[in-house]
Amino acid sequence: MPVLTLAEAEELVAGALVKAKTDPENAKSVARALIAAEAGGLKGHGLSRVPTYAAQAKVGKVDGFAKPSLEWKKPAAAAIDAANGFAFPAVDLAVKELPAAARKNGIAAAGIHRSHHCGAAGHPVEKLAEVGLMALMFANTPGAIAPWGGSKAVFGTNPIAFSCPLPGRPPIVVDLSLSKVARGNILAAKQKNEKIPEGWALDADGKPTTDPNAALAGTMLPLGDAKGTALALMVELLAAGLTSANYAADASSFLDAKGPPPGTGQLLIAFDPSAFGGGLDHFAALAASIEGQPGARLPGARRLALREKAKESGLTVSDALLAEIKAI
Amino acid sequence: MPVLTLAEAEELVAGALVKAKTDPENAKSVARALIAAEAGGLKGHGLSRVPTYAAQAKVGKVDGFAKPSLEWKKPAAAAIDAANGFAFPAVDLAVKELPAAARKNGIAAAGIHRSHHCGAAGHPVEKLAEVGLMALMFANTPGAIAPWGGSKAVFGTNPIAFSCPLPGRPPIVVDLSLSKVARGNILAAKQKNEKIPEGWALDADGKPTTDPNAALAGTMLPLGDAKGTALALMVELLAAGLTSANYAADASSFLDAKGPPPGTGQLLIAFDPSAFGGGLDHFAALAASIEGQPGARLPGARRLALREKAKESGLTVSDALLAEIKAI
Repeated sequence: MPVLTLAEAEELVAGALVKAKTDPENAKSVARALIAAEAGGLKGHGLSRVPTYAAQAKVGKVDGFAKPSLEWKKPAAAAIDAANGFAFPAVDLAVKELPAAARKNGIAAAGIHRSHHCGAAGHPVEKLAEVGLMALMFANTPGAIAPWGGSKAVFGTNPIAFSCPLPGRPPIVVDLSLSKVARGNILAAKQKNEKIPEGWALDADGKPTTDPNAALAGTMLPLGDAKGTALALMVELLAAGLTSANYAADASSFLDAKGPPPGTGQLLIAFDPSAFGGGLDHFAALAASIEGQPGARLPGARRLALREKAKESGLTVSDALLAEIKAI
Repeated sequence: MPVLTLAEAEELVAGALVKAKTDPENAKSVARALIAAEAGGLKGHGLSRVPTYAAQAKVGKVDGFAKPSLEWKKPAAAAIDAANGFAFPAVDLAVKELPAAARKNGIAAAGIHRSHHCGAAGHPVEKLAEVGLMALMFANTPGAIAPWGGSKAVFGTNPIAFSCPLPGRPPIVVDLSLSKVARGNILAAKQKNEKIPEGWALDADGKPTTDPNAALAGTMLPLGDAKGTALALMVELLAAGLTSANYAADASSFLDAKGPPPGTGQLLIAFDPSAFGGGLDHFAALAASIEGQPGARLPGARRLALREKAKESGLTVSDALLAEIKAI
């Protein structure tokens, strides 16, 4: 299989998007995010997205030329309009503007609306932690999870990401979605004609199912059952309620070029530890109590190792995907 | 069994605490919180706590006379020193001070350290939502959950609470701990000489166990396996890392009168929806999409119904617990 350096891969992706009605700066922002995800082993948020992103930009479901705009409505609260463009330029803007506001006010947040798929939510919080801030991010996605006891998806898989700086080493990064498994696992079972385990999904009537086709017509189950559904509701209200973005049920797919823009939302929060009494040494103490246990490691450690490896050895891309991207 | 009105129950609890070396105002704050939890069906955070709270105050593990102090270190960030007193007066102070700062800055947060058991984390966020703010609360607790792959508890059961205002009706309230089940379920199995289901707990070597005794000597499993452990780490760092409070592993028990004060932490965050573009009508739309589904309801609805019932019919207390509280 072909191997690309990270720089080559970014150039490939940015070039493909520019050919698909996208502004070069926006294309670079998207390419950086997708390649960082691919390098960290998050292939679902990596190169595999390029063909569908390009298709959406071509038909205007994503406005590749949109420039996000930011308004500080209050000293520590910014509203960012992603203007139905890609999410990444809007997220980049939040990451650029939040540190000064967080240092001045102790905490600051940016809500993004008219947005799109934000990929690996761990990246923006990691960047904030790299400049010494603790950070949280919440995002909603198109409908996937039903309310507990219900059958219609009104929440997305709704990622939560968190990052905490550590002295002299990369930050701790938590990045998880609230569905028990990724939808890709159900698609894979369908392709192999296999049943799925109970507990992954419900059918269209809200009943447990082991049939991947019924699951794809139904809803995903969250981690932790009723508690997970409550967390999905919380993220939906933080990421889309607070920001006036579209809720999951009103958001079109991130994966095809049909319909209006998804218009989803994201919320980033940055904390200046010194304003609350915390500090790097105290954070390091918790990290040590985890890493001192045989078999335990910090969340994000695996992605970090994969990313380092990708920096040295490049990314392996399938012939089919490479050809598909080159043909855009 | 005896029945008390809510006012009688509050008076009973406050009176018992005053007899156990606690300042009357602090005792009232604790009593309000415990009775609100009891009324909402959260008996683990209600009257059952009075004897152990009183025992801790008597020996000074909790300083019943401590007055919390608040410092705005930055315009939107307050550090509250609970001064090794009960958590509730410190939490009350946060709930009192946050609304003005959130309205001015768009978002504001208060970190509490040298704190104690904060009971039902849903209550403070609910009070913030009652004045029109969206709110989050994170708290750490004494060691209960091991890092994924490890065997020593370095995270508490670490509640997350969230509340969102709705127009003309009580707010949505999410309030959950990150352990799969409450420790009380394991104690109950032990008392009945029953095994516990797999997936609830690990033994002292970090191996799955169905023996309640081995589970009590080991650690609790979180909801959602590895993802839940990552969430517990996140809450530990937000509630205790950011606030410079004691981590779970260094916190003495909330349930006995032995050792130094627990010194745990809490973090409350309040958001002014108007500063991010959101608003009550948009929140109501999500509530409607949930309540419109047969079998589905908003989180917190059950507690609200129980509380209304308790207002009318009072609280039923066992003879034994009532006698124990009266004997303090």
